Amino acid sequence: MSKLADFVKYEADEKKEKHVPVIDAPNTVKKGEFFSVTVTVGKDIPHPNTKEHYIGWIEGFVVPKSGVAKSIGKFVFEPEITDSTATFRIRLEEDATLFAWGYCNIHGLWENSKEIKVG
Amino acid sequence: MSKLADFVKYEADEKKEKHVPVIDAPNTVKKGEFFSVTVTVGKDIPHPNTKEHYIGWIEGFVVPKSGVAKSIGKFVFEPEITDSTATFRIRLEEDATLFAWGYCNIHGLWENSKEIKVG
Amino acid sequence: MSKLADFVKYEADEKKEKHVPVIDAPNTVKKGEFFSVTVTVGKDIPHPNTKEHYIGWIEGFVVPKSGVAKSIGKFVFEPEITDSTATFRIRLEEDATLFAWGYCNIHGLWENSKEIKVG
Amino acid sequence: MSKLADFVKYEADEKKEKHVPVIDAPNTVKKGEFFSVTVTVGKDIPHPNTKEHYIGWIEGFVVPKSGVAKSIGKFVFEPEITDSTATFRIRLEEDATLFAWGYCNIHGLWENSKEIKVG
Ligand SMILES: [Fe+3]
Ligand SMILES: [Fe+3]
Ligand SMILES: [Fe+3]
Ligand SMILES: [Fe+3]
Repeated sequence: MSKLADFVKYEADEKKEKHVPVIDAPNTVKKGEFFSVTVTVGKDIPHPNTKEHYIGWIEGFVVPKSGVAKSIGKFVFEPEITDSTATFRIRLEEDATLFAWGYCNIHGLWENSKEIKVG
Repeated sequence: MSKLADFVKYEADEKKEKHVPVIDAPNTVKKGEFFSVTVTVGKDIPHPNTKEHYIGWIEGFVVPKSGVAKSIGKFVFEPEITDSTATFRIRLEEDATLFAWGYCNIHGLWENSKEIKVG
Repeated sequence: MSKLADFVKYEADEKKEKHVPVIDAPNTVKKGEFFSVTVTVGKDIPHPNTKEHYIGWIEGFVVPKSGVAKSIGKFVFEPEITDSTATFRIRLEEDATLFAWGYCNIHGLWENSKEIKVG
Repeated sequence: MSKLADFVKYEADEKKEKHVPVIDAPNTVKKGEFFSVTVTVGKDIPHPNTKEHYIGWIEGFVVPKSGVAKSIGKFVFEPEITDSTATFRIRLEEDATLFAWGYCNIHGLWENSKEIKVG
């Protein structure tokens, strides 16, 4: 059976354009205290933002040590009007991996992740 | 015929809790250049963030002089994990009114707006 | 202060194209039992579905007698691939008004509503 | 580097509760003609639908032979009010695999897929 993951792309798949979502967040945070996370598609090389080619949305997940993924929200953009970046605030109770997905209407799904320590 | 607007609440309806979304954005921006917008529910008095009572999402719209509303995205939060604030970037071609909606699962829909000049 | 509702359009505003979301749901339902709701934009005259002109999403709300609006979900479509209709199931504890919003990237926000009796 | 896919669950991971989204769609469709897809979480054994434990959303993707994933929409539910099922309509230009994700706020991300022939 095929898995969606077989069609998700990662940093190593990137050529000219920049699709991989870049995650800006602290390496270490305090237990239960909100901190800011910024996810940006096209941080180094801006991605096109036209009716024909755009970043449709960014979606976030966090997986704590338990291994059960938690949804942390989805930001749906409007072509031409909204830039492909979003900042939000989350809190963690234990070490976790933060995952971000970015979606390009032409180039598909792109994933990145970042380990965050609670200490 | 009833209208949804009859059940939307505004700043004047606020009592103890803070539900009205606060919009932080420049008063004047440059034509076609992205600028940051932060929408926060509970800026002065934090809103509860529990499984029983939480801010489910924030949604944004922009209405330029033409009078036709443009969607600028929706940020769906996760109770307990995501704080009720989101920052995103938009660009305008002409003077516009920015609208933000915040949704509390107990207290319903709340709206705020801000005029932005392009100059 | 301006209100987003001033820029929402209704059945009476419709001319050639069909933007007003049509709500198919029973007039009377049983308390606490799920029933189907179908919301369709372009039921009589199909709306364009191209990269340049499309229905971006449909969003639903329900307002029970208490007068506090409840979000019942948003369906975000993909231009060219997804048709502008969605069917979902909800349950009510008391008489309520169901509201649907449809969003056209060119023609803005459109609203319709339907009273549903619990009996 | 960890991948979100490592934390997604499939049919084989299911025990007592039913989390895997069931996809009802034709095996064969006509090129470019819309057809209905119903995605249901808890089809055999209904999933809890309370403030503490609920299906937050269903999300769909389609991957045509080109191998580039296309978003086909996300339906965000409201705990207690919306049932965990959604019906929508899509069209395909070539053979494709349809993917559905369901999200439980306690048990995480679940995926299912279905091959659809265009003929
Ligand atoms: Fe791209
Ligand atoms: Fe509240
Ligand atoms: Fe239109
Ligand atoms: Fe569950």
